[in-house]
Amino acid sequence: MLGKYLDRTRERAPLVHCITNYVTMNDVANMILAVGASPVMAEVLEDALEMTELASGLYLNMGSVQDREVMLAVGKRAASLGHPVVLDPVGAGAGNTRSQLARRMMDQVPLACLRGNASEMRALILGEGKTQGVDVAPGDEVSEEELDWWVTHLHGLAKAYRCVAAVTGPIDLLADGSRCVIIRNGREEMTRVTGTGCQLTGLITAMIAASPEEPLEAAAAAVCAMGLAGEIGFSHLADYEGNASYRNRMIDAIYHLDGKTLDKEGRYEIR
Amino acid sequence: MLGKYLDRTRERAPLVHCITNYVTMNDVANMILAVGASPVMAEVLEDALEMTELASGLYLNMGSVQDREVMLAVGKRAASLGHPVVLDPVGAGAGNTRSQLARRMMDQVPLACLRGNASEMRALILGEGKTQGVDVAPGDEVSEEELDWWVTHLHGLAKAYRCVAAVTGPIDLLADGSRCVIIRNGREEMTRVTGTGCQLTGLITAMIAASPEEPLEAAAAAVCAMGLAGEIGFSHLADYEGNASYRNRMIDAIYHLDGKTLDKEGRYEIR
Amino acid sequence: MLGKYLDRTRERAPLVHCITNYVTMNDVANMILAVGASPVMAEVLEDALEMTELASGLYLNMGSVQDREVMLAVGKRAASLGHPVVLDPVGAGAGNTRSQLARRMMDQVPLACLRGNASEMRALILGEGKTQGVDVAPGDEVSEEELDWWVTHLHGLAKAYRCVAAVTGPIDLLADGSRCVIIRNGREEMTRVTGTGCQLTGLITAMIAASPEEPLEAAAAAVCAMGLAGEIGFSHLADYEGNASYRNRMIDAIYHLDGKTLDKEGRYEIR
Repeated sequence: MLGKYLDRTRERAPLVHCITNYVTMNDVANMILAVGASPVMAEVLEDALEMTELASGLYLNMGSVQDREVMLAVGKRAASLGHPVVLDPVGAGAGNTRSQLARRMMDQVPLACLRGNASEMRALILGEGKTQGVDVAPGDEVSEEELDWWVTHLHGLAKAYRCVAAVTGPIDLLADGSRCVIIRNGREEMTRVTGTGCQLTGLITAMIAASPEEPLEAAAAAVCAMGLAGEIGFSHLADYEGNASYRNRMIDAIYHLDGKTLDKEGRYEIR
Repeated sequence: MLGKYLDRTRERAPLVHCITNYVTMNDVANMILAVGASPVMAEVLEDALEMTELASGLYLNMGSVQDREVMLAVGKRAASLGHPVVLDPVGAGAGNTRSQLARRMMDQVPLACLRGNASEMRALILGEGKTQGVDVAPGDEVSEEELDWWVTHLHGLAKAYRCVAAVTGPIDLLADGSRCVIIRNGREEMTRVTGTGCQLTGLITAMIAASPEEPLEAAAAAVCAMGLAGEIGFSHLADYEGNASYRNRMIDAIYHLDGKTLDKEGRYEIR
Repeated sequence: MLGKYLDRTRERAPLVHCITNYVTMNDVANMILAVGASPVMAEVLEDALEMTELASGLYLNMGSVQDREVMLAVGKRAASLGHPVVLDPVGAGAGNTRSQLARRMMDQVPLACLRGNASEMRALILGEGKTQGVDVAPGDEVSEEELDWWVTHLHGLAKAYRCVAAVTGPIDLLADGSRCVIIRNGREEMTRVTGTGCQLTGLITAMIAASPEEPLEAAAAAVCAMGLAGEIGFSHLADYEGNASYRNRMIDAIYHLDGKTLDKEGRYEIR
C-alpha cells in the first residue's frame, strides 16, 4: 500500500530545497537523487528565497545551526507557497540553543512533518531532554512497553502543530493526530553511519513533495524505505566492510528500491 | 592526442585552490587528488589570498553562493598572478542572485574557462533561463539538431570573455573562439550522482593549471576523461550498486586513467 | 600493549565535539563512529559551548579557518572542564594566517595533543615553513636520517605546550617530553585520499577522550590504528579501485579493528 508513494516520487521527480548541515549534506543530496528527486541546497537569504520558489518542498535541518533568521524566513515563504516543509530538530534536548531553535521553527513555520530520534522527540514532548550530542541517549529509544505513551504524545504534537510527527529508531512511529503508523524495518548498525537520520528526513521531504495531499502515507513510505535500505544494504556488505561502505550501500539500495518491493518487505501496521 | 594533458597533470602535480560549494567539496578534493594534483580549499579572505599565491590555478564554484566579494577579490588576484581561473556558474538561470553573480564574475575576473550544464550556459547566452535548481532542465540539453546553435554561441562567449566556453551533458562542446571540440563520452546515470559537474570543473582546473598555454586541449582532455570515468566506473558496478557507489567508481576511474587509454577510448572530434 | 586503548574507546564510547573543516567533516564523523565513539559538530558560539559541556573531548581542526574567536573560546572552555583538546594545525606554514592561528591556539588553549604533517610541524618548530597548501611539501617528510632532529624538537614542543606532539607520515613520531613513540605502519597511497590527516586527528581525540590520563599511549594507539587501517584497507581494494574506494576501506578497517590485532600488527617502538 505504501509502495505507490515511492513510485510516485520517481515519476514526479520533485525539486527539493534543503537547508541542512554541512556534515551530511552530500549524503542527503545523493539520497534525494537516489529516490528520483532533485536536491538544491541554498542558504544565503536572497538565493534561498528564489530557490524555494522553484522547488516543491523544503527540508530544514538544524544540524549546523545555520543562520536562524534565514531558516525561519525561507520556511515561512515555502509554507506560504503551499510547499510541504519538513523539520529535523537535530540535537533538540542537547542544550538550550537547539531546543529553543526547534521550538521557534515549530511555532513560526507551518510544518508538514517533524521527524527526530527518540531523545529529540522526547525533549520536544517534555520540554526538556538529555540528548547526547546529536545521537539518541541510552534508554530513550521507543520500546514496546512505552509504545502507548509515544502514540499518545505524537498525536498530541501532531495536533498541536497540524503536522505528521515521527520518531525513528528500532521502532518507528508516525502520527497525524488521528492515525498512527508503526514500522519495524531497519538495523541497529544504521546508527554507526553519520547522517542516516538526516538522509531519512530528506527522503521524507522528497516523498511528501511528490504526494503533498497524503503526508502521513508519504512519510511512512519514506521511513519504511529507509529501514529496508538498511536491511538490503547490510546484506551486501562483505565481512571486512564497515560503516563507510554501509553508508554507500543504503543510498544504493534506495536507488534500486521500487514500490512492489516496499509493499512486499515492509513491516508496518496502520492504527 | 588529448592523452598527454592527463599525463602532464600527474607529472606536474599542480596545487589547485578551490572556492567551492559545501555539498560536493569532498568529492572535488578527491577528484583533484585522483588526477595527481593537490587541492586546497580556502575562502576566508586573507587566508584565501595567501593560498591562491601558493597555487597554480583557481577554481571558483558558485554552488553555495559563498561570500561574493571574496570570490571576486581572489579571482582577480589569481588572474593577476597569471593563474588560470575556471568558473562553474552553478545554478545560473535559476534565480537572479546566481545569474547576476555569474555575470559579475565573468565581467570582473579574467577567466581561462567557463563550464556549465546546458541550462546554465543557455541562461548565460540568452540572458535568461529556466534552470531547475542546480540541474539541467528537461529539453535544455545539447542535441544534434541544435549543435550549430551551440557552437556559434559558445564561440561568442569565448570571444567575449577570452576564455574556453564549455557546455557538458550527453554531448559536450568546448569552444575557444576559433576551434571547437565535440565529445561524446559519458553516461546518463552520471546525472544521478550529486556533484559530477563540480568534480569535472575541478578536473578542468587541475588540467589547465598543468598546461596553461593550451587551455582548450587541457579542458577537453578533462571533459573526455570525466566521460570515460563515467563509462569505466559504471562497468564495475554490481547490479545492486547505485549512485553512491557510482560516485566512488568515477573518482577511482580517474585515479587509474592514463593518457594512452584516454586517446584510445575518447570519442572526440576537433573542428 | 597499545591495543587496550582501542578497546577502551569502544567500551567508553565518548562524545567528541569537533570544530573541523567542511571538506572532510563527514569522513571525520564516520571515522569517530567507526572507533565506537560519537561525534558532534557545532561551531556557532552558544551552541558550541553547550555541546562541549556535554562532550568528553574537543577536536579543533583549522582546515576551513572558521571563526577563530569561537575556536579559542570553546577550546578554553573545554580545557577548563578538564576535557582533552586536540589541535590539527592544517596548513600551518602555508601563509601567515594559518601559522598565526595555530600559534594563537597553542598559546591560549591548553592542549592534550598537537598533530600535524611534517611540513606543518616543521613550520611550528622553526617558526617558518614551506607547506604546500594543506599537504606536506616534498623533502619535508620525516626520514631515518632526521629522526633525532625530530625527536629532540617534538620533545621541545611537548614540554613548551605540555602536550603530546605528533608528526605523521611515512614514519610517525609522538613525544610527550620524556618518552617517544615511533610507528612505521601505513602506506604512501593514503596521501591520495583527502582528509586522512583530519580523520586521524579525530581518532586521536576520541581515543584520548577515552583514556585522558594516558594521552601519549592513547594517541600512539590511534596513529598505529590509522596506519593499520591504511594497510588493511588497501589489501581489500580491487585493481580498478582507487582513492575514493580507499577512503571508505580505511574507515571500514577501523570499524572492525580490535586491540588484539593492533598489538599483533602494529610496528611501533617506545623510547
